[in-house]
Amino acid sequence: MTFNHSNWTIKETSFNIDHLAKFESIFAQGNGRIGLRNALEEAYVTETRGMFVAGTFNKAFTNEVTELPNFMDVTRFDIYVDGELFSLLHGTVHEYERILSLKHGEVIRHVTWESPKGTTLKLTFRRFVSSSERDLIAQRINIQSLSEKPLQLKIKTGIDGTMHNHGSQHFTEESKRVYDESFLQYGGTTSQSNVYVSANVACRAHLNGEEFDKRFSFARREIMFTYDVSLEKKATFVVEKMSIIHSTRDGENQDVSTETIDHNAYQRIKMVYDEGYDEWLKKNNQTWDMFWGKNDIRIESEDPFDVIAVRFAIYHMNIMTPKHDSRMSIAAKGLTGEGYKGHTFWDKDIFILPFWIYHQPEVAKSLVEYRYQSLLGAKKKATENGYEGAMYPWESAWINDGEVTPEEGGTDIYTGKPERIITGKKEIHITADVIYGLWHYWKMTGDDAFMHQKGYEMVFETARFWLSRLEYNPENDFYEINDIIGPDEYKEHVNNNHYTNYMAKWNIELAIRNYEILKETLPNVYEQLSDRFSLEHMIEEAKEKVKKIFLQEPREDNIIAQDDTYLSLKEIDLHPYKNLDRAGAIMDDYNITQISKLKVSKQADVVVLPFLFKDLFDEETLKANVDYYEAHTLHDSSLSLSTYAIMSKEIGKLQQSYSLFKQACRIDLGPQPHSSDMGIHAASLGGIWEVAIMGYAGVRQKDGRLNIDPVLPEQWNRISFAIWFRNQRIYFDITKTKLSIKTEQKIDLIVQAEPVIVQGKMDFDI
Amino acid sequence: MTFNHSNWTIKETSFNIDHLAKFESIFAQGNGRIGLRNALEEAYVTETRGMFVAGTFNKAFTNEVTELPNFMDVTRFDIYVDGELFSLLHGTVHEYERILSLKHGEVIRHVTWESPKGTTLKLTFRRFVSSSERDLIAQRINIQSLSEKPLQLKIKTGIDGTMHNHGSQHFTEESKRVYDESFLQYGGTTSQSNVYVSANVACRAHLNGEEFDKRFSFARREIMFTYDVSLEKKATFVVEKMSIIHSTRDGENQDVSTETIDHNAYQRIKMVYDEGYDEWLKKNNQTWDMFWGKNDIRIESEDPFDVIAVRFAIYHMNIMTPKHDSRMSIAAKGLTGEGYKGHTFWDKDIFILPFWIYHQPEVAKSLVEYRYQSLLGAKKKATENGYEGAMYPWESAWINDGEVTPEEGGTDIYTGKPERIITGKKEIHITADVIYGLWHYWKMTGDDAFMHQKGYEMVFETARFWLSRLEYNPENDFYEINDIIGPDEYKEHVNNNHYTNYMAKWNIELAIRNYEILKETLPNVYEQLSDRFSLEHMIEEAKEKVKKIFLQEPREDNIIAQDDTYLSLKEIDLHPYKNLDRAGAIMDDYNITQISKLKVSKQADVVVLPFLFKDLFDEETLKANVDYYEAHTLHDSSLSLSTYAIMSKEIGKLQQSYSLFKQACRIDLGPQPHSSDMGIHAASLGGIWEVAIMGYAGVRQKDGRLNIDPVLPEQWNRISFAIWFRNQRIYFDITKTKLSIKTEQKIDLIVQAEPVIVQGKMDFDI
Repeated sequence: MTFNHSNWTIKETSFNIDHLAKFESIFAQGNGRIGLRNALEEAYVTETRGMFVAGTFNKAFTNEVTELPNFMDVTRFDIYVDGELFSLLHGTVHEYERILSLKHGEVIRHVTWESPKGTTLKLTFRRFVSSSERDLIAQRINIQSLSEKPLQLKIKTGIDGTMHNHGSQHFTEESKRVYDESFLQYGGTTSQSNVYVSANVACRAHLNGEEFDKRFSFARREIMFTYDVSLEKKATFVVEKMSIIHSTRDGENQDVSTETIDHNAYQRIKMVYDEGYDEWLKKNNQTWDMFWGKNDIRIESEDPFDVIAVRFAIYHMNIMTPKHDSRMSIAAKGLTGEGYKGHTFWDKDIFILPFWIYHQPEVAKSLVEYRYQSLLGAKKKATENGYEGAMYPWESAWINDGEVTPEEGGTDIYTGKPERIITGKKEIHITADVIYGLWHYWKMTGDDAFMHQKGYEMVFETARFWLSRLEYNPENDFYEINDIIGPDEYKEHVNNNHYTNYMAKWNIELAIRNYEILKETLPNVYEQLSDRFSLEHMIEEAKEKVKKIFLQEPREDNIIAQDDTYLSLKEIDLHPYKNLDRAGAIMDDYNITQISKLKVSKQADVVVLPFLFKDLFDEETLKANVDYYEAHTLHDSSLSLSTYAIMSKEIGKLQQSYSLFKQACRIDLGPQPHSSDMGIHAASLGGIWEVAIMGYAGVRQKDGRLNIDPVLPEQWNRISFAIWFRNQRIYFDITKTKLSIKTEQKIDLIVQAEPVIVQGKMDFDI
Repeated sequence: MTFNHSNWTIKETSFNIDHLAKFESIFAQGNGRIGLRNALEEAYVTETRGMFVAGTFNKAFTNEVTELPNFMDVTRFDIYVDGELFSLLHGTVHEYERILSLKHGEVIRHVTWESPKGTTLKLTFRRFVSSSERDLIAQRINIQSLSEKPLQLKIKTGIDGTMHNHGSQHFTEESKRVYDESFLQYGGTTSQSNVYVSANVACRAHLNGEEFDKRFSFARREIMFTYDVSLEKKATFVVEKMSIIHSTRDGENQDVSTETIDHNAYQRIKMVYDEGYDEWLKKNNQTWDMFWGKNDIRIESEDPFDVIAVRFAIYHMNIMTPKHDSRMSIAAKGLTGEGYKGHTFWDKDIFILPFWIYHQPEVAKSLVEYRYQSLLGAKKKATENGYEGAMYPWESAWINDGEVTPEEGGTDIYTGKPERIITGKKEIHITADVIYGLWHYWKMTGDDAFMHQKGYEMVFETARFWLSRLEYNPENDFYEINDIIGPDEYKEHVNNNHYTNYMAKWNIELAIRNYEILKETLPNVYEQLSDRFSLEHMIEEAKEKVKKIFLQEPREDNIIAQDDTYLSLKEIDLHPYKNLDRAGAIMDDYNITQISKLKVSKQADVVVLPFLFKDLFDEETLKANVDYYEAHTLHDSSLSLSTYAIMSKEIGKLQQSYSLFKQACRIDLGPQPHSSDMGIHAASLGGIWEVAIMGYAGVRQKDGRLNIDPVLPEQWNRISFAIWFRNQRIYFDITKTKLSIKTEQKIDLIVQAEPVIVQGKMDFDI
């Protein structure tokens, strides 16, 4: 793979079919509602064309898992040149480049292609998913003849309802319509969740300044326009295509009939069609400019890759987040692929939410609100598992679904017996992670109103879950948590995973603390909540149990055991598996049962704690544990590298930190051609931002106060950005030697471990 | 398109992606149970890969129509050469040919290909669907390196369960298994009809005489083998793949658990694997040799295309016919494509059944038996439509389904209103066509036992339908049949379509005649039937009504009106639409409502009658009507040309006949690249055989006696073949001047209108 980048664009410089899926993912476009893979206009056998719309979850078959369905396609163009299909696999590609603008989300592709018969064309493909209009996708294609002889073009495009999720079809074909011979409409309904989708397209073409006629045709699951064009030398044929996607999952369409949706979508496509590509691009660009104006991180680095990697992360966090609807959340692959089925994991709460908390707290609020709206499902899950309160789903989809991790993963390929999937039942730390996200949001924003209305309920109900989950060990007179999976997924069925026990304890303590503060300071709120959730007895129990929750004690060398058995596992030489640009290399030599008996971690586990809670470990303990666990961690999860990068910085290992940061950036932007096939790595992208802001800029929250402790890597000269903290805008400008902070109102900060009050611009030496 | 042919093979001489679907259809392979399109091993965007198994009908969604599902694919091979995907679209194709052997059903493809990087390979692909084993598909690929440097091959193949019918997925994914690291198994169940399918593959590879190891992998809906091969110069890598397909629709598996099916299929693939490609090919060839030994039509023609066209027709009739199971019938596209959804129409009874009656009466019996087994559905259809007796479905699928023509064809693309499909209710001649097929079988075989057990019931129940369908016209005191569609589908809602009225009358008369003969000659059978079907009253009614059924009277010029209004319709110049190699050209200028007001026919209608009933029209009437209607017919149905070809011969217009015959042959074998995309034209292929045997050789049945009246077209010198008639084998050898007939036992024939008794060999001058 080769690609170049300026500070704002990523360029694919040559066509390679082996890299189609990677670029489809990393060049994906979207607006938080629509996610569109950047499959090329012309089709290829090895492509994975895909479009996903947030919240449209469906189960294609009863024995499958709910997932985001692959929508009807509007992007494909079949172009025939003198009867030959345009494809970069045959003929000669004289020029090729495809550029993603991170600034405006537009992708432009320039191709000069000579057909096998020798006809030469210059083609420009442009495309964006509108940032200003949630329902709009716009495309423009320019085709210029470079041949001496006139040539015949045939161009076919429209709506293709044959798309599926690797063979599983989610949509029935409901209707195909043509209006005014100019607008195509295709209606489909998801087979189980009954989501109606109305896809609409309009095309307008020009040749020599004259509008050019088309014809339409339809077949099973498709409705198409066709242009038949005679193209003289040097002449350029231009076709613009606008697509409008509506569904019953849109907030405004919840109780609207399919007829009305179709009617409104038709009115909308007519309106959109009137303005054209340039006009909509202008609006899209304005929206992006506003976004970057607020959220850009300006980095000066010796390696411009760092600049692009951080912007790439922010670009993708922006297009993956359904800001418009708190019934929807962020998926592990964003909206860029079928991987992880569009489900939300702890990635969202721990690795992506911070970006929004710091930059657009109103979006963070919507994401936390999603967890509130999912409480019913979490309570259902607790009950189903024999516990009380709210047990958050390990995998979360539609708000009412509850746990969507399947219990069976089909038949075991060797034995034919049903294969158990245990993460849904065992990876219970998610419940505390959700509360951490809520708390993080609260501490950074001071949004007490949200806590009163929704947050406390989440805290109390999760604490209630943990209390019912604790297991009393009479021999030692303590409470423990056995037979679970911690963050490190290479260790299944472990007891007293330190991360999980600590987070459970923290979650319970948070409930107690909040209960008592409320009682003292807000008796009204207190009484209301106490009644609604019958807290009295629960808090009593909490106080009793919390004292006796078992936590791993640091050894003499300060190492904190990941769980009861980790430290006594067998060591092997991990060098062959470390620092590779692909994940899971150890699987070539060991199966999961064997791996679980080795002292090797997939990802950060114990060391996530000091990332979440600044100064939780003293200096020595931190250093000991980061060093110890990094040596045993293969970073086979994309959630690992950024945590270690930040913690390495905290222990003064800046070079190691930077190297881990680079490795994190390469997960999606590196040379590995297939790591992103199923979609980008959302948590890793959040982590990249975390390394920059919470790591090198050192801006972290502790007990509701902002701590600033920047240390730039050797290659970086400067980083500047602004964040929100408690409704205030704080501007940071950091060089190797100087930290400059600017605020409008007075604000208490901890800068390099010293409390300071900042107002206006203040400089500090580093 | 270019293809050559010897007397037994058809060769595609160059690769052209625009012709992929055509060759997939015409080079399709099968054994009456499995039908496999000849999609190339390497995938192309414009391909339509497909495999169908007789009888496995399913409705993918409740608003769709039951159809034969596209099965999991076993044919695809992804081949990478030094990392580049093998595809004839790129690199250089130095040699290419693909040959279908009509004799043995094997397809062999030779390719010499130079990769874009300059690596040259010689590849040979061989494939057959076993004629001796109903469940077996065999493939062999030889890859020889022609490059100086060693090269790296990666070959991936297995079972791909992502296949679908143009976007509609019929199968759930049930299980994926690997046995002994050598056998892959994929289980799927159809979503509505609950047919369980077990697909099984085994691969064996050799390099330099040594068996070569593979690895396996699996993903959603797929399970695969991969070979990683280093290939030295001149070395050849050979991989054989065997596939076994079982399902609960197999007669022996009707009440068998899916576990047992899987187990048996696994035992079977192990057994198959032991013998290998050559061994199974030998058995396949023997079975084909036996088939051709009995059924070949040897033609000597100036144009060898005629020879191939007739053999092509017989080849396809053989692979499309589910001889093994009378619960299954012949689809309009055989098992070669998604067109017409695998449904059976009157094509089977009128155009394809005769081949089997003449050549393998036991197969014909199974096909007639299918109609008997479908009686329940036909009765249900009659009741649903407010009639009595049995009203056969216009489109027939699984025996219990009844009518499967949808009543609504989705929404009207212009209005959004539901689109009515009326053929299911209106094209009622099918009921008499079914009985004609039964009668034809009976008259040619003399299989009275079948009639006693099943046939009479069909005759009586259909007569009962017609009696309830007749409409009394008090003004004229006759019975008529209004508002129907006759064979000519360009005319909807017509009254008194001559074909339909005549066939209805014939069907009723047949019931009366049989009833009376039975009463006289077989009182036992008579009583039994009479009781079971309470015939007395019905036959009374039949005798009353049949006398008064209105039939169109010949005009003064002997023209018989196609229906009440046809002769008064507007004439237009049809020359622009005639003798084209594509169907439906008139649709470019007129819509169906306009066409129904023009004096133009899609296909043979009135003239089908004298084809079904020899000498029904006197010479003058025949000539007048064939001439008149041929001039008004566009042959836009593949059922038309052969009928006119035979009738043109009967009226002495041999050149016109031959020209129509050629045109019929070109429907699938002509240059039109897309006419066969959705599958071959089964009825047309049956028609080609009919022209040769019932037309030029002039072997037709009349009142249970065989009439022989051969006239060879100018270009033909000879035709020889054997048929069955009433359990006797009759051999024909016909030249322009001589007819030679050979039988073993004594047999009464009508030869050139003269009754003769033949035993041994007898020659006649022509």
